[in-house]
Formats: sequence, C-alpha cells, structure tokens
Amino acid sequence: MKILLTISYDGTNYVGWQTQINGISVQKTLENALEKLYHKKIQITGASRTDSGVHAVCQKATYEVDINHYPIDKLPVILNGHLPEDIAVILAEEVPSTFHPRYNAKQKTYRYLIHNAKVYDPLCRLTSWHVLHPLDVELMNEASKHFIGTHDFKGFCSTGSIVKSTVRTIHDMNVSKHGDIIEITITGNGFLYNMVRIIVGTLHEVGLGKIKPEQIEGIIKSGIRANAGKTAPPQGLCLMDIRY
Amino acid sequence: MKILLTISYDGTNYVGWQTQINGISVQKTLENALEKLYHKKIQITGASRTDSGVHAVCQKATYEVDINHYPIDKLPVILNGHLPEDIAVILAEEVPSTFHPRYNAKQKTYRYLIHNAKVYDPLCRLTSWHVLHPLDVELMNEASKHFIGTHDFKGFCSTGSIVKSTVRTIHDMNVSKHGDIIEITITGNGFLYNMVRIIVGTLHEVGLGKIKPEQIEGIIKSGIRANAGKTAPPQGLCLMDIRY
Repeated sequence: MKILLTISYDGTNYVGWQTQINGISVQKTLENALEKLYHKKIQITGASRTDSGVHAVCQKATYEVDINHYPIDKLPVILNGHLPEDIAVILAEEVPSTFHPRYNAKQKTYRYLIHNAKVYDPLCRLTSWHVLHPLDVELMNEASKHFIGTHDFKGFCSTGSIVKSTVRTIHDMNVSKHGDIIEITITGNGFLYNMVRIIVGTLHEVGLGKIKPEQIEGIIKSGIRANAGKTAPPQGLCLMDIRY
Repeated sequence: MKILLTISYDGTNYVGWQTQINGISVQKTLENALEKLYHKKIQITGASRTDSGVHAVCQKATYEVDINHYPIDKLPVILNGHLPEDIAVILAEEVPSTFHPRYNAKQKTYRYLIHNAKVYDPLCRLTSWHVLHPLDVELMNEASKHFIGTHDFKGFCSTGSIVKSTVRTIHDMNVSKHGDIIEITITGNGFLYNMVRIIVGTLHEVGLGKIKPEQIEGIIKSGIRANAGKTAPPQGLCLMDIRY
C-alpha cells in the first residue's frame, strides 16, 4: 500500500528536503523514523525539493509498504514519536499505487516573509528576510499582479536544474503588510528552481523603486536571469499548500 | 561613563540572561563582545533576569567604562559585529552614573504567545506554547482584568528567589487572538520569579473552563501557589518593554 504524508518542518537545521552528502535532510530524517516503525529501509518521494533553510507547513510525501500494521489515523502520532521537534507529520492517508506526490500536484502555494524594519529582530531571523530600507508595499503588490498568468519563466530560474519546459502558470499572487512583516503569497501550477525566491528578489527591487511594476512584463519576456532581481534568502520561504 | 544598552535576543540557545555555571548566558555573550571592544573585562547589569528559552525584544543593561572611544550611535553596529545572530544590540545611550537598569525600572511589559491549534507547527515551537485543546479567549481576557491592580502575588511566585515583598502592581493586561495565536500582554511595575508564566498557566485553566474568571481574586488572595495554574513553558514569553 502507498501512504501519503503531510509534513510540517522548520528547515533551519537541514540541508533541505532532499538527501545530500553534506548533511542531514528532512527526507532522510523521515526515512529513519519510518525504518524504526517498519524495521526495514523505506524510501520516500517528496512533492517539493525545498532548499536548505526553507520551511514547510504542508509538504507532501509518499512511501510504499507491503503491510502497514498501524492504524492510518494514528500514524502521525506514532511517527512524531521518532522525529525531532522541528519536523512533524500532521496527516497520513492511503492513496492509489499510481499516485505520485510531485507529478500529480496540480497547484502549490508558497509564502515569503520580509521583516521590513530599521531594527534587526533576532526572533524573526529564521523565518524572514530582514530588509532595512522601507519597501513600498503597494508598488510590490501592483507588480505581483504582472506575474499572474502563463509565462516562460526562463529568466526566473537558477542554473543547476534540468527541466523540459520553463513555462509555468501563476494563478494568484498577493503582497500585504502586517506590522513590520511583508507577506508575499504565490500560487501556481509549479515552480522552477529558485523561482519564488527570484520573484521575491525582483519585488524587493520594485519596493525600493528600482524597478517599476510595468517593467515586470518585459523582464519576464526577456528571459534573461540578470534582468530579474537577486535570489532572496531561503529562510523567508515556506511551502504552504499542495493541491491534487 | 555609564552606557545603557537596549538588547533583543532569541533566548532558545542560552541558559537565560544571567551567567550560570551550566552553559552560555546572554549576559556572558555580551560581556565577551564588550571585552573585544574595550580590551578588558566588562561586567554588565541587566534589568530583567529572563530564564532559559525566554526571549527579549527590549532588554536593558548597563556597563561602565573609564573612556569610550566609540561614537555612542555607532556602538550597536560595532557590538553586533562581535555578537551571534541571535543577540542584537539595538540602542546605546549614555546615562548618569547613579542609573540602575533594574532598580530604576518603573514599568515592564511582557508578551506571552500560545499557539492554540489541533496541529503542532514546528515553526511556532520556539516562540509559543502549543496548546491542543481550544481555549476560550473571551473568558481568558475577562479573567486577565482581575489581575490588574496592586496585590500580594505570593501564590504566583516560584520558590528560589528571595524578595522583600511579594506585592506588585499590574497596570494593564490583555488577551487577544490572531489566527491560531493567542497573545497575552501584561504591564506592571515589576514581576516575581516566574510570575508571568504562572499567570499564563492560570489563564490557560480559565481558557479550558477549569477556573472561572471570578475565581481569580480568591486565588490571588489565598497566596497559595497550588491554587494557581501550572507554570507555562518559557519559550512563549518575551520581554517587550522597560520604562524608566
């Protein structure tokens, strides 16, 4: 049987979702916990390869076992007993054997937080990007609307990933401010490597007045990475939702 | 000359403000940074002895030096260069030699965050108390008003501290909810050891319906620690403001 897990984590202390040689990954930590439950090696497949320092409220991952002796609704509690405090399984569901958490994903939502304040706050450092200079949130929100739609996001992609197509659809995007925190939410059918962080880096330039909202269309069309803003740091990013 | 520092910190990785034998304190970390600046041992005096895991947006501390070669407005930036990312000096001011950060404090404000949700969120674990059962925020807010005023808080004090008087004045208290986060703010002329956390533990019982708001007066008057709620965990607590 195939089991789909919904997982929350604080990505601070991990090399990212995917297992790598240079440190401990969220994936490997979960696989170790599953090995304790089933007394054999279990490989899991994640929906989204979040980078080091990136968080998730709702990551999805599947694994297969011949027999699962545990009640499906008790699996999260049992698994959490073998997981550190910065990773939590919040739901377990049985899915058809054909289900793939990445390929079947129809829609993903990410959130990015910017702590926009003159004074650095140590309590915000692991979950937001501290930007000292005041950002114009209205301009950023206006600019965000120019990303909505189906575009070739070739210029909003870091090198190092091989994909067949760089065309993606962004369904919705919003920029709002709550106190000193600027919240950027983005929903799309999929995202290229570092795409959300490059979009945020570009909105940062808009907030500073260096790029005008109406220039976004041209920047996307150019397909040139250097025309977009820099890649925003990982810790502000959080995977919020995946829909199938 | 005497210099007053305003300090923010994430208390997660410290044994607390005060230097102890069992680990690294915020105080000691600051003293080490000051030693690098002045090339001699400097002792600092803090306004509030926050416990291990307790945070501060606005701690105050003083130190004395014969000569300060650094421009006072540049001191925070210079000091932060010698501090880890979880501690930040946000202001430095010269004060009279008679000034004492603790004894001269007229008013302190603390904030306590409860993450009230059925699902545990790893991203909230270091800054809030996760309470699974739904709490009645209106009842908690009603109960909080019964703490306002001058009372003998003998029953709201952990053993281990020697104080002349257990009488304190609470000026203001509020309980509000934002999403899954319950925010409790409390302002008073001073607080006994663990007093805020015991008040929060008592409000937790109110939120569960185990203690009625109108019982608070009697619990305070009894002066018996066991009549109050348990001590809420440290990570939800944050020192927000100190007024002189």
